[in-house]
Amino acid sequence: MADPIRWGIIGPGNITRNFIDGVRATSDAEVLAVGSRDPERARAFAEKWHIPRAYGSYEDLVADPDVDLVYVATPHPMHAPCALLAIEAGKGVMCEKPFTVNAREAQTVVDAAKRKGVFLMEAMWTRFFPLMARLRTIVETGEIGDIQMITADFGFRAGFNADSRLFSPELAGGGLLDVGVYPISFASMLLGTPNRVSGLAVLGETGVDEAAAITLAYPSGSLASLTTGVRVTTPHLAIVSGTEGSISIPSPWWVPERMTVRRGGATAEYHEPKRASGFEYEVAEACRCVRLGLTESPILPLDETVAIVDTMDQLRALWGVRYPMEVNG
Amino acid sequence: MADPIRWGIIGPGNITRNFIDGVRATSDAEVLAVGSRDPERARAFAEKWHIPRAYGSYEDLVADPDVDLVYVATPHPMHAPCALLAIEAGKGVMCEKPFTVNAREAQTVVDAAKRKGVFLMEAMWTRFFPLMARLRTIVETGEIGDIQMITADFGFRAGFNADSRLFSPELAGGGLLDVGVYPISFASMLLGTPNRVSGLAVLGETGVDEAAAITLAYPSGSLASLTTGVRVTTPHLAIVSGTEGSISIPSPWWVPERMTVRRGGATAEYHEPKRASGFEYEVAEACRCVRLGLTESPILPLDETVAIVDTMDQLRALWGVRYPMEVNG
Repeated sequence: MADPIRWGIIGPGNITRNFIDGVRATSDAEVLAVGSRDPERARAFAEKWHIPRAYGSYEDLVADPDVDLVYVATPHPMHAPCALLAIEAGKGVMCEKPFTVNAREAQTVVDAAKRKGVFLMEAMWTRFFPLMARLRTIVETGEIGDIQMITADFGFRAGFNADSRLFSPELAGGGLLDVGVYPISFASMLLGTPNRVSGLAVLGETGVDEAAAITLAYPSGSLASLTTGVRVTTPHLAIVSGTEGSISIPSPWWVPERMTVRRGGATAEYHEPKRASGFEYEVAEACRCVRLGLTESPILPLDETVAIVDTMDQLRALWGVRYPMEVNG
Repeated sequence: MADPIRWGIIGPGNITRNFIDGVRATSDAEVLAVGSRDPERARAFAEKWHIPRAYGSYEDLVADPDVDLVYVATPHPMHAPCALLAIEAGKGVMCEKPFTVNAREAQTVVDAAKRKGVFLMEAMWTRFFPLMARLRTIVETGEIGDIQMITADFGFRAGFNADSRLFSPELAGGGLLDVGVYPISFASMLLGTPNRVSGLAVLGETGVDEAAAITLAYPSGSLASLTTGVRVTTPHLAIVSGTEGSISIPSPWWVPERMTVRRGGATAEYHEPKRASGFEYEVAEACRCVRLGLTESPILPLDETVAIVDTMDQLRALWGVRYPMEVNG
């Protein structure tokens, strides 16, 4: 058996626990190191989660010659600089969603990875579930005909707190980048890049989108109707309506373990429970790609990741949402 | 017991059967007469449905002194002229949805009814179900907090046929007026008139909207995300998401017989099966109003009906959908 793929984590936080669960459910991978700008935090996190090496800077982490892949889980505005740091050190990168704050940043990171020839992937964990692979097959074989409409949502109600990252323009807060990216990515997976982008947002007192209803149209004549927000809990359903049938993923659809396919009078139920946190599928895909020498995943290509961020840029332009770091950008 | 309210029908067609069922499930109402521009059609329809009087013109029907209320169920562009004819003859009117083709027509009909002092109501049958009354009470008492988001859809797949009324610009075809009016009216019932209107439509070869995704924003900061179409069967769900909980009406939500109210961890189920076709509730409301001497229903006021048509006008303007009779209008 080959050596395990050894991961280094940039940005210890809540989401990182799910990542660690995912790696530990993957037979040929391990978490080797964690890096934080706060050495004490890195050390405590490493101890708590039994991670062999702790680094007090991102630079030290990416310099570890034994780290194969870096998982970037910092706040949104740090994604691009951290990914670039790892790429320049010659490491492959799996970067949390939203991939970057805007498409210009996304393209910069993608270009850097291509120049260096290293692996790069957006950590949109939902995309890699076995049930999503099944869904793609069902769509590709024409079982529900041509997709005409997709509806999907991801909104949750957070108590308003001007200091929370969710409401902070400095941290690229708001619903769109935090959770709206899920339904946008889902529509992208099935319909590609929209050629018309519309929708309305409710901006809160800090100037970020606290709730939004999004409509996207595609060259094929399909439509997507998506909702999101950090001030409202939405139904958490994803439904794909085709000319011959439909696919429904029940709440919470972004942890896709069940779906119902309807065609004519017939109904088929699928159930594929996740093995661990659900992060094991994106971890396995990244490891698979690295072993094969691929620099991107065919399941979530880098051009698609950039296009998804660009769709969010277009929506923010419609809504007048700019983050402080973009004002002179 | 008072004399029954006696109805005359303008426009015998498929939907009229549901209306007749509704009247016959209402204890103090009866169907007295039917009118069609085709005398033979009127006669055959009257015979088939055991209606005492048949008229070979709309003029003759509205001239019958025994008719109390006229039900207008003609194709969309005939709603306004037929309603006006009945109003001018001094009859109360219940007019099928979409009330009229555009808001200018709607206002003309409303003004005429006010001048004549006769009853007028849009036949948006969904609005009058007992479950909808229950839903309004739940919302008004604050059980789900402030409404933040409404999602609702009504789309069905019709085989494309350039000669069908659904695809005919001359008959104000397309999804919006035929079925999109349902989710728009539902959102109007709970949130009032939107102050921002957006969305995207897919126009077919005849120039009407074959599918659409609509976003509406309200002065309260609420949003509605609605989909519709005549070329796609959508999920047929209505969900009201509030700050404290949510209400879901399962498919088909526009025949509201069941709903689930969620708040915190608790769930309450409501079930109120319709007694007949479901049209009995709008029929009963019209009869109630007439007996009370009301000229409009507080459950669906005329200003609201005009505003709903105006919202559809705004959407059509965004999409570039104009009907031939409007081109010089």
